[in-house]
Formats: sequence, structure tokens, C-alpha cells
Amino acid sequence: MNKLKVFSLFLFLSHTYAKAQNTDSLMIRKIYDEVLTHSECYQNLAYLCSNIGGRLSGSPEAAKAVEWGKKVMEGLKLDKIDLQPVTVPHWVRGEKEQAFIINNKTGVRQETQICALGGSIATPSSGIEAEVIEVMNFEDLEKLGTDKIKGKIVFYNRPMEPTHIHTFNAYGKAVNQRWAGAMNASKYGAVATVTRSMGLKVDKFPHTGSMQYVDSLPKIPAVAISTEGAEALSSLIRANKTAKLFIKTNCQTLPDAESYNVIGEYRGTEKPNEYIVVGGHLDAWDNGSGAHDDGAGCVQSMEVLRIFKAIGYQPKHTIRVVLFMNEENGLRGGKEYAKQVKLKKETHIAAIESDAGGFSPRGFSFEAPKWFMNSVQNYKPLLLPYDLYDFDGKGGGPDISPLVEQGIPTVELIPDSQRYFDYHHTADDTFDKVNKRELELGAAAMAALIYLIDNTEFH
Amino acid sequence: MNKLKVFSLFLFLSHTYAKAQNTDSLMIRKIYDEVLTHSECYQNLAYLCSNIGGRLSGSPEAAKAVEWGKKVMEGLKLDKIDLQPVTVPHWVRGEKEQAFIINNKTGVRQETQICALGGSIATPSSGIEAEVIEVMNFEDLEKLGTDKIKGKIVFYNRPMEPTHIHTFNAYGKAVNQRWAGAMNASKYGAVATVTRSMGLKVDKFPHTGSMQYVDSLPKIPAVAISTEGAEALSSLIRANKTAKLFIKTNCQTLPDAESYNVIGEYRGTEKPNEYIVVGGHLDAWDNGSGAHDDGAGCVQSMEVLRIFKAIGYQPKHTIRVVLFMNEENGLRGGKEYAKQVKLKKETHIAAIESDAGGFSPRGFSFEAPKWFMNSVQNYKPLLLPYDLYDFDGKGGGPDISPLVEQGIPTVELIPDSQRYFDYHHTADDTFDKVNKRELELGAAAMAALIYLIDNTEFH
Repeated sequence: MNKLKVFSLFLFLSHTYAKAQNTDSLMIRKIYDEVLTHSECYQNLAYLCSNIGGRLSGSPEAAKAVEWGKKVMEGLKLDKIDLQPVTVPHWVRGEKEQAFIINNKTGVRQETQICALGGSIATPSSGIEAEVIEVMNFEDLEKLGTDKIKGKIVFYNRPMEPTHIHTFNAYGKAVNQRWAGAMNASKYGAVATVTRSMGLKVDKFPHTGSMQYVDSLPKIPAVAISTEGAEALSSLIRANKTAKLFIKTNCQTLPDAESYNVIGEYRGTEKPNEYIVVGGHLDAWDNGSGAHDDGAGCVQSMEVLRIFKAIGYQPKHTIRVVLFMNEENGLRGGKEYAKQVKLKKETHIAAIESDAGGFSPRGFSFEAPKWFMNSVQNYKPLLLPYDLYDFDGKGGGPDISPLVEQGIPTVELIPDSQRYFDYHHTADDTFDKVNKRELELGAAAMAALIYLIDNTEFH
Repeated sequence: MNKLKVFSLFLFLSHTYAKAQNTDSLMIRKIYDEVLTHSECYQNLAYLCSNIGGRLSGSPEAAKAVEWGKKVMEGLKLDKIDLQPVTVPHWVRGEKEQAFIINNKTGVRQETQICALGGSIATPSSGIEAEVIEVMNFEDLEKLGTDKIKGKIVFYNRPMEPTHIHTFNAYGKAVNQRWAGAMNASKYGAVATVTRSMGLKVDKFPHTGSMQYVDSLPKIPAVAISTEGAEALSSLIRANKTAKLFIKTNCQTLPDAESYNVIGEYRGTEKPNEYIVVGGHLDAWDNGSGAHDDGAGCVQSMEVLRIFKAIGYQPKHTIRVVLFMNEENGLRGGKEYAKQVKLKKETHIAAIESDAGGFSPRGFSFEAPKWFMNSVQNYKPLLLPYDLYDFDGKGGGPDISPLVEQGIPTVELIPDSQRYFDYHHTADDTFDKVNKRELELGAAAMAALIYLIDNTEFH
């Protein structure tokens, strides 16, 4: 090619690229305009939180949430709606827990706020009253040994580190106390564990969450205590080593139950058998309303399809919204979905999840192959005007993580994380904690990303 | 120079630059660690909001706030604390306002929430009851003319546009209805104005704010109605053109009062006569507690100096914290400060203000000369790990804007703006709406920026 031809080709390509960028930017503007003026996600979340509330796997509320999800999708006039059967664990809290911090020297019994961890066995019906031994980590247990631990309640009191800018990093470094606390304390003959709640704020709300036993060790009851309670308990036992804690829990694990992932499809015009998934998880801990975790992700995911229909965007690939069941205590919905994808040999272009709260979005994190990430680089200038700048985080969402081994790119919406652990797994995770615009911006961010993925030729 | 020498110099400079970047990044990490573990700004804000509350210029509360600011600075053991005299307007609301939307066909009088705008005259003590004419802008007034407006209450009902991603842009496009509504309606013989509150949420809180008369036109009372009230009023008068509104306000403008800017200094080691200013405004509307607007900015600014002292950072230039008086209805504090800078021929390297709420920060906006902006480019990689990425906005803060004409670079902290206008100028701008970590991150962002400016050789 002579220089003139090269130059002409360059001009042609630049022009084509600029035109494509311009079309994309107009479409993204349309997406945001639509959600910020006509969204239904906020009202949908209001309904879910206020009329159904907490909805742990296997509960009547979870069954209602499945019906609700199906109904909202029906309202969107999707091309196909499926209930995908999932067998889920069925743990129930029973009556509200009771706890007292007991100063045996003064006789004062101070009530404190605890909650059983999901999956825990209950205390005997008369409760457990025992001395408390405070530790910061599993190494402390080893140093103390059976002599000092046997017959006592192990109190894990390592706070989430406030110096992390992203609070999920602080959570990640503290949560082993909750998840593996009982199995580790059980080795040394502890009678129960109480774990400082996974929150950065000092308040009265105990944070529940999942925990795990191992078959080889005795099962002991495991509870979370509010951060305020943890401070009080720690203060007392430092002054008085024989102070005691009384806890009574009433939880139990029932036989597995039948439930569903709720799946809706907006069929692609060009490649209907290739899928882009967007989802959140439908189940939520029983103590709150599951507003940020993860009602927000569910209503945002359905909103993506509502936006596309409202602005008349017909996707090339089929967009599939999935409300996953049982993220909180088993991930059975995510696993079943991935199993069926493999079984049916379905082609998935990408899967996107929103499960970090309905806060003002800052970007996306990824667990994705290089060919996918190369294209993501091109999206950045189109998304920056919408305050989406952070594309460097690692990890897709929890429910879509079982898709990774099939080579499917997974993405998680990254909202501002500062307030998430004020509400996470507590009775305070209620609808009034969600700001309408912040929720909407999260839905728009996912719709914009899906639009871009839908229009990318991946190499 | 031969090639080898050039290469050696390049290596030397690269190394020096890398070392400086590393020192800077360690210092910024120290700043964040300090504020996220030992900040006092949140407790300071709690005191200001709960024990003093709303503090409009000239009020006893504003005087208490001046004393409080001085006392907090004394606690920081600064090198110098000054009260800079400022003569301020003194407008008082008087008794709470009353308003009824009156359906003259059914006789129903529906109470609704209004508040007088700052600077407005009061209605007669018997109130004003009149028909209402709804307009969207000043052009509508012109089209309607005196015939249709005379004797009526003009109702400005143009909502803030929800499609702006940054809510301050929506505010900027709507606020002329509040600020210049009365003077424009007065031209056509209106008896009062009622303006839809400057908020994006539909709720019961009326938003106050400043307004202005012109001497050449009759002064008429001006109030804001809550967005919910605006919806109700609009709905009624569209169905029934002779429906009425009753309003009664009790405000008045008293003679100007004496007040102060509160100024504290941490003396520079190398250039003590060159200043970097950090500030917020101490006054706040009387109806709320001025938590986000702008208690947050005040406590964050003082926190900057506390951080520097706590981590043992001795600034090269003198860092001056200024709590400005009278931003809300006059800007007299900002003007007086700039006047004194000019009079005393003080050298100012930069001025930074926080007056956009105590929310999770996203960056800074600037009104600054090119020589300053060139260096700001170098700060970006150091600030991105702290989620500060947005440096493209225009404008420094309001109180420091009078410094611009002296060629002083001005900077404003840019927090996430989604929730700001839910609280701005309302009774709902209270301490509980501020998240501790978000507030702290704003203080740290300003401290980091000031540290970088303090260590920059500007050319």
C-alpha cells in the first residue's frame, strides 16, 4: 500500500471507530436517562423488603421471594421465565437468642445482643453459662492449649481493620473467626464460641453469617456478638478473669428443602444461543430485610432488562437475568446454575453480579481471561463520565464464581464500600438504608457494561 | 554532555523521582492510617450538631459555634488562633411557618410544609391567601404577563433534573427559581412566591436557602415548599384553577451583627509566611443541624492539622485552617478573609475547601492557574489508591472564591454527590446522616493533597 492509501485507511478506521464510540456513548446516555427518570428497581426493592423481608433458603419467605421474582419478570414481558430447581440447606433460627454478660463479683447480669451463626447447632434449652477466654486468632488458641480453653466459651475479638480503604478487604481478613471459629475452638474443648460481629461501627447490631463444622470434631454452638457487646465483654474479662457469659440459642438444621433459581431471558437477535448473565441472590439472612444484601442486586439485575426494553434496545446475545438461591449458606443456586450450563453446553459470553450493596457505583472487578480484559480496556473512556473508573479489582461475584472453571468471564459491580458493613447480615439491613439514585446508578452501570459486551467482537 | 553522562543523569533523576514518589506514598498512607484509627472529626461533628445545632449568621448559635471552633483549635495546640471580625447579615426566621393548600370547591384545607427563604420579608401577620399560578421558569412569567399574575402567588415548580450524574449540576440549573424567584415575580404584581424545594427526593422536608431582592421592585414574601407539597399543589391547581394557597411566615432582617472567621495556624518550618488554607464554613441554616452543610467541612479542616501533628509532619509552609462565617447568606466571611489577604499582602500557595458534604470522596475540583494544575497531574497516581480519581471538575469552594482574583489556586473536595440534596438546607441535615468513615476519608483526602502541595516546587 502506498502512503496515501495507508493514510486513507487510517482515516477511514479512525472515523469508523469514532462513530462506533459515539453510538456507544449515546446509547449509554440513554440507559442512564431511562433509569434516572423511570426506574422501577426502587419500588421493587421496597416491596421485597417490606412485604417479604428476610428470606433464608428453605423458609416460607424464600418461597414467596421466588414467586415475587417470577412475577416481576412476568411484568417485564420477557421471552422466557424459568424456575430452576435447587436443593437447599434449611437452617432455622427459632426463637430470638438471649445473652448476658455476668460479673460474678458484683452479681450484675448485663443483657447483650447476640445472634446464632447460620448453620450452628443450638445450645441446650437451658443455655450455656461459662467463663470466657478472649483470643484474636487461631494461633492464640494453640498457645493457650486445651488446659486453658476446655469448658470455656472462646471469644474471638479481632476487629475488622479500619485502615483498609475498601472495607471488603477488612472483612476478608477478619471473617475466618466467624466461619471457622467453632471448628478451631472445638479442638481444645471449648463449649461454645462467640465472635465479634463483622462490622466497622461500634453499635448494638449482631451480624450473622455462615459458619462451618468438620465431622471429625464435636459441634459446639457459635454466635456473633454486637461490636458494642464485644467491647463490653472484653473490658469486663480483662478486669475479671472469672466473669461469665450466658448464651441461649434455639436454632436447628432441618432436612434440605426444594427451592429455585429464578431465570428470565430477553432473547438475542443475532446470537440467541449465546448468553450474557446478570444477577444477584434472592436469599437473605432472616434477621433483616436483605435490602443491600442482596435485594439490591436482584432488583438492579431485573432493571437492566427493563431498561433495554424501555429504550428499545434489542440485544444481539440473549441476556439472562438470574436470581440465585442460597448464596448465604451454601451457594447451591450458583453451583446448580453452573452445573446446568455445563450439562447443556450453553455458551456464556460473560456473567455479571451485583452483590456488594446498592451504593453509588465506582466500577467493576473481574475474574476473567485476558481476551476479555483486553476489550474491557476500551470501555473505560465510555464509562468514566458516569463515575466508573475502578476496573482493577479481582473477583467476579459469589454466585457466578462456579462458572469460572468453565472459562466464562465473571464480573462484579463495585459500589462504594464504606457503609456496607454497617448493615451486612444485621437487622438494620432494611429498605430505608438504600438511596434511590445510588441503587439506580448501579443498575445503569451494569446495563451499560452489558450493552458494551453485547456489542464487542471478542478475539 | 556525552551520551553516558546523559544516561547517568537520567538514571539519577529517575531514581530521585522514584524515591520522592515512594516517600510521598508512605506519608499519604500514614495520613490515612491516622485518620481511620484516631480521628476526632466525627466526635467534633457530633458536638457541633447536637449541642449547638443550626447556626445562622448573627444568631446566638453562630456565636457559640465561633467559641467552639476556637476551643477545638486550642485543643490542637496550634501556633496561633485568631478571631477575624466579620460584619454579617442577621436574618431570623421567627415562629415556624404555616401553610395550607385550599381546595375552594370542596372546602378541604390540607396542611403542607413550607419554610421562608433566607432574606425574605414576612407575610402580614394574618398570612397571605391567594390563587396560585404555576410556572417552570422566568420565561413563563413573561408569557403570562401582569394580567394573569397580579394578585396571585407564583409557584415555581421546575424540578431538579434527575439525569445529571453529579447532583450539583442539577442544583445549578434549578436554583435561580429560589434565588431570583421573588424579584422576577414581583415585576408582574405577584403577592408572594413559593418555590419547589431544591431536592431530588420526593419528601416532606422544605429546603431553605438564600434569595435576593432588587431595590427597584416591591419586595414580596418568598418560601420553599417540600417536593411532596409541590406535587400535591401542582396536582390540585391543574384540576382546579381557582384553588388557593395560604402561607404565613414570621421572618425579619435585623441590623447587621458582629461575628468572626475562626483561624488557626500550624507554622511552616521553611516558609512560614507562605500559606496553604484549608477550610469550611461555620454558619449553617437554622432549620437543621448543619451536619453535611457544612459542619463536615469544618471538622475535616481541623482534622487535617490534627493528623499532621499526630504523625509528626512539620509542614514547610504555614497551614491555616479557616472556619468561614456567613457562607449561606452573604459570603461576608470569605470576602473579608480575601480582603485581609490583599491588605496584608500575604502569599497564599493554595486554598482548599470542603463544602459539598461529608460523603465518600471522589476527587477535587479546581479553579486554579495552569502552573498549579500542571503539578496536580503528578499527584494523580499517588491519590488513586485512595479512590480519588476525579480531578476534572471546575470550581474551588464558595468561601475561597474571592481569593481567585488574586491569582490564588482554589480547590474543592468532591465527595459523592448522590445524597447531598436529600439533606441540604433541611431539618434533616443532622449528625446521624453522616457516616464516620466517609467523613474521615474526606479529611484524609484534603490532608494528602495539602501534604503534596506543601512539598511541590511550583514553576
